[in-house]
Amino acid sequence: MSDRSDRRSDAAANIGAGHEAAVPKAVVNRLSLYLRAIQYLMADGQDTVSSIQLGTRLGLTDAQVRKDLAFFGQFGYPGIGYRCDELVGQIKRIVGTDRTWNVCLVGLGNLGSALISHRGFAQQGFSIAAVFEVEPEKIGQTVEGVTVHDFDELATVVAEKEIKLGIIAVPAKAAQNVTDALVAAGVEGILNFAPVTICVPENVSKVAVDLAIELEKLTFAVVNRT
Amino acid sequence: MSDRSDRRSDAAANIGAGHEAAVPKAVVNRLSLYLRAIQYLMADGQDTVSSIQLGTRLGLTDAQVRKDLAFFGQFGYPGIGYRCDELVGQIKRIVGTDRTWNVCLVGLGNLGSALISHRGFAQQGFSIAAVFEVEPEKIGQTVEGVTVHDFDELATVVAEKEIKLGIIAVPAKAAQNVTDALVAAGVEGILNFAPVTICVPENVSKVAVDLAIELEKLTFAVVNRT
Repeated sequence: MSDRSDRRSDAAANIGAGHEAAVPKAVVNRLSLYLRAIQYLMADGQDTVSSIQLGTRLGLTDAQVRKDLAFFGQFGYPGIGYRCDELVGQIKRIVGTDRTWNVCLVGLGNLGSALISHRGFAQQGFSIAAVFEVEPEKIGQTVEGVTVHDFDELATVVAEKEIKLGIIAVPAKAAQNVTDALVAAGVEGILNFAPVTICVPENVSKVAVDLAIELEKLTFAVVNRT
Repeated sequence: MSDRSDRRSDAAANIGAGHEAAVPKAVVNRLSLYLRAIQYLMADGQDTVSSIQLGTRLGLTDAQVRKDLAFFGQFGYPGIGYRCDELVGQIKRIVGTDRTWNVCLVGLGNLGSALISHRGFAQQGFSIAAVFEVEPEKIGQTVEGVTVHDFDELATVVAEKEIKLGIIAVPAKAAQNVTDALVAAGVEGILNFAPVTICVPENVSKVAVDLAIELEKLTFAVVNRT
């Protein structure tokens, strides 16, 4: 069984790597939702899950669930559904969270402080390995076991700790400077909480979270509901 | 001029309301990005903006910018571009943030504490009018000028303060119960930070922010980059 499973995971990884452009963004986002739903069921003691059950939890049809997962290989067993632990392993491998990622956080204001103590990161394989600040009174502190470094040390610390991902939690005005420093230091992915669009080179990925924009999606829906 | 502008804004509002289903989600999200970009330029003293300039800031073509804004009416002036203050007014009207929205926050853990002091909400017309908690030691406190109420008082306070939007910042296990309480109290839109998919009736809108999922989008991109 472990042999079969290994072969399949290699195939899935290859498919994922070779056809990245062909996998729609919406499917990638849903993979994380599947992962979260299955982990939740496992915590409740469930060993297997059907596409119907996953679909119901996520507001999707079971056909959509099977179609999404088929992008990456054949995971299900007829009459059984998916084995939770196996599917979690496969999705983590595809998403890249079958390893721990060292992440740095820039900015220790209110949002930064919440992010550093956000337990959801560690649960999913993300370790905040360093924090950077410009405020002298914050530098040198230890918060949630993580040292707060001077922003000027960013390149050195990022290299030392092999940090590949950075989280920006600084004011809008500082966001592009921070981005440039992260990119220069070799960070390959940036999660930006500053309410401004940052520019990154093609070989660096970015994801933006603007909390007010999330609320504006709701107001638009409420105002335009007929 | 103000007459023309008024007529145009009415037309835009009608178009927005009548054709909600026809406006793609991506366009709605980009409206907020336009709004943020223009507000940023205005803070720098700029009075007008071109579709090329907006496109460059947001990584879009100028044709895309004009197409997006054309969904809601004709805002631009040939040879001038868009007047920043007028465009901000129009977009806010379309998105629904030309008024202040009373929002409630459920859960005053680390994330809830960051959200309540997040200045970006007030800047965009969102006022956190009430916080709800179940922890006895938190109830009755005032945080950032907002009273922390017992979760049991949710229905009463939501009605009193005419709260239409709710933010969920509680653990996954509690999220659906909180959702049900918000819906029963008449909230029409829910922003969910709990790492679980919540179920809402059709007449209630939801937006989910799972911070680890945002990081997983990055790891997928990094791992599958060719």
